[in-house]
Amino acid sequence: MTGQLKSFIEVAQDSDFPIQNLPFGVFSQSREGKRRVGVALGEWVVDLAALEANGCLNLHPNENYFNQSTLNTFIESGKSNWSKLRAKLQNLLSADNPELRDNLVLRDQVFFKQSDVILHLPVHIPGYTDFYSSKEHATNVGCMFRDPKNALLANWSELPVGYNGRASSVIVSGTDVVRPSGQIKLPNSERPEFSACRKLDFELETGFIVGKANRLGEPVSIENAWDHIFGMVLFNDWSARDLQQWEYVPLGPFNAKTFASSISPWIVTMEALEPFKTHSPIQEPQPLHYLREDHAKNSYDIHLSVELKAKNAEHTDVISQTNFKYMYWSMAQQLTHHTIAGCNLQVGDLMGSGTISGPTPESYGSLLEITWNSSKPLTLSNGEQRSFIQDGDTLIMKGYCQKEGLRIGFGEVSGKVLPAIQFNFTAHTAEEKLSETV
Amino acid sequence: MTGQLKSFIEVAQDSDFPIQNLPFGVFSQSREGKRRVGVALGEWVVDLAALEANGCLNLHPNENYFNQSTLNTFIESGKSNWSKLRAKLQNLLSADNPELRDNLVLRDQVFFKQSDVILHLPVHIPGYTDFYSSKEHATNVGCMFRDPKNALLANWSELPVGYNGRASSVIVSGTDVVRPSGQIKLPNSERPEFSACRKLDFELETGFIVGKANRLGEPVSIENAWDHIFGMVLFNDWSARDLQQWEYVPLGPFNAKTFASSISPWIVTMEALEPFKTHSPIQEPQPLHYLREDHAKNSYDIHLSVELKAKNAEHTDVISQTNFKYMYWSMAQQLTHHTIAGCNLQVGDLMGSGTISGPTPESYGSLLEITWNSSKPLTLSNGEQRSFIQDGDTLIMKGYCQKEGLRIGFGEVSGKVLPAIQFNFTAHTAEEKLSETV
Repeated sequence: MTGQLKSFIEVAQDSDFPIQNLPFGVFSQSREGKRRVGVALGEWVVDLAALEANGCLNLHPNENYFNQSTLNTFIESGKSNWSKLRAKLQNLLSADNPELRDNLVLRDQVFFKQSDVILHLPVHIPGYTDFYSSKEHATNVGCMFRDPKNALLANWSELPVGYNGRASSVIVSGTDVVRPSGQIKLPNSERPEFSACRKLDFELETGFIVGKANRLGEPVSIENAWDHIFGMVLFNDWSARDLQQWEYVPLGPFNAKTFASSISPWIVTMEALEPFKTHSPIQEPQPLHYLREDHAKNSYDIHLSVELKAKNAEHTDVISQTNFKYMYWSMAQQLTHHTIAGCNLQVGDLMGSGTISGPTPESYGSLLEITWNSSKPLTLSNGEQRSFIQDGDTLIMKGYCQKEGLRIGFGEVSGKVLPAIQFNFTAHTAEEKLSETV
Repeated sequence: MTGQLKSFIEVAQDSDFPIQNLPFGVFSQSREGKRRVGVALGEWVVDLAALEANGCLNLHPNENYFNQSTLNTFIESGKSNWSKLRAKLQNLLSADNPELRDNLVLRDQVFFKQSDVILHLPVHIPGYTDFYSSKEHATNVGCMFRDPKNALLANWSELPVGYNGRASSVIVSGTDVVRPSGQIKLPNSERPEFSACRKLDFELETGFIVGKANRLGEPVSIENAWDHIFGMVLFNDWSARDLQQWEYVPLGPFNAKTFASSISPWIVTMEALEPFKTHSPIQEPQPLHYLREDHAKNSYDIHLSVELKAKNAEHTDVISQTNFKYMYWSMAQQLTHHTIAGCNLQVGDLMGSGTISGPTPESYGSLLEITWNSSKPLTLSNGEQRSFIQDGDTLIMKGYCQKEGLRIGFGEVSGKVLPAIQFNFTAHTAEEKLSETV
């Protein structure tokens, strides 16, 4: 069993990155330094560009997969290559193999402490789509903003509702997020005002990275959909609830979402997640044919949590704990639905799961739900209260799978919120400014 | 006056492409041939890569702007370079200048008949956003699907409503469009069915191409917004109305739009359009400060039309004639609003205007409006009727500006509709198939 495979590199028992994981990322040794592809192992990054240059990988003659600033070239090389590399790396890094273990000169070129390098966006993301596939989340939102008795819209149970997001504003974990500004309409005002967002929220999500393209006009069948998925990341879909409420009818969220969306730096492959396959909820009504698949093994048992660290606070507070397995629509169903009308997906596309909420308040995936739109504020361990995110707050999401001594983790996606820009509408009178800027 | 400038190349009086226009495109001599940048002049393409290679342009030492498969490199070089090139080209191509005029060997390398070359997508489009900025269109849709007395939603008059589109499915004029399939919910059915789209529509739009990026978290002010716009194209935002109606609440259109969006091959620059600046409608209420600009010269007088050519028909029918100047929100307002919360735009981004409808039924920009959702079918000159687009129909959109003997045209964006894919859900019984595939 793979759980018994050990590396010559010591990996802590509770590490997210044992030799059974080997998630992919892109790193450099300085901010402007040369970017290349690596995998995480314990607290190290293994430099695949260095291994490739030293002839240790030999996936394909004359190929340059890893001396690259993104993973796209490698991902495009295909699923059989992903498996081939995984097997090679597990062999090369195993405690039993002297090739790298005993080559101290090469080891010096290949291993870097994660704390000493800079992690970048692992892929170029040509397109980003966000789904809305947690029944609990959609129900909570429906209860708050529509009718508690008819919380789910009729289409929700028939198709994985999704919308096109903005790919350019996807950022890597650790990047600060500037509080957005825009139009807010207060209930008692006749007109909207221009203001910094007052209801800044996170959304706990995962995302998957498309590993295989399909051509325009050629849908991917549900049977083939899993072959089009390279791996998964943690995903924080930052949301400005007040901007969203005013803008989103009838064409969907726009400025409320396009100011930042954060992903974790390590892409965990579907192969690494394989031991944690589990069943998704039974779908009732049974989906139409094109979305029909066996629900016995189409989800993953991934523990997810959200922590909030207030400015100057000594401790972080865990404010949500949930699990990916609650998702109603599977990743394969999302991908197939996305292409059924002919849309072409591209290698590197990011598909957000939608907020992942579980059945209880402790497992809700957004502050909107946790505080029930401010009606039940959170009290942090430092005594402060939160309805929504305040300036200086850092949000940290973590994820891992665990069973029988095997832990496959995602690391984290974090982001700190900075104060909004001070706008100065110089062309206008002070009186006008006062009335519209807050 | 620039209207009097003449080229040594003969250009017909009614050509869209006189020397005052010089729109940019990307062409090759065969399907798989080398792509490079050109400008249109009369019925010719002027090969800028050939001119650059022969030292006729000298914009910048050692630069390679035009021996490229997209315009992005040149656009990124900046607005002053765009102007510099335009002046150089107008000089080089003018009847008075012997440099190219009398060099027949070079002319042979530089001029290609448009009918002999293949035109490609002129830019790599990193992001595509579609707005909804025609008051007449939004009002018509609101009348049909909501309340005729409150047709416009409250947010519509306060901000240019927009949504993220799917960039990967933007195609160039001349590319066939496969009729999409997906979920359709009929009024008297309890559940949706899987079907080919029965309400396939066009949307007459223009689009602008972003010419200058802004960084994440750094909005573009309304004063600077025009400097971020490179040029305009014609745009057909194909729409599957029946898919759309079922899927779009609450997160906006998705599969109803992502199967194809067609643009014209030539990007007409803002400099070429300058003589046709005109005022946009007065905005009431006056927009919030960040969107406030002088409406006297923030629009363009562009005549637009839609033609439909039925399969095997001898003639095309003009089914809509309208004008860009009816647009309520300006392109600068769209761009500034898009960035106000911090979203970063990228060079090459496509911003669709939204369907452009005028005040009368003859000027509506979609079949949905023209036939008032099938209640007033069109009769074509061959006697056939149309509520929506049928297989084999070709849709052709044209646009031009004209005054005082000067015509600046866009050429056209066209696309032919092919029948839907035949799906075969082999895993299921014939009875089930019958009930769900149409």
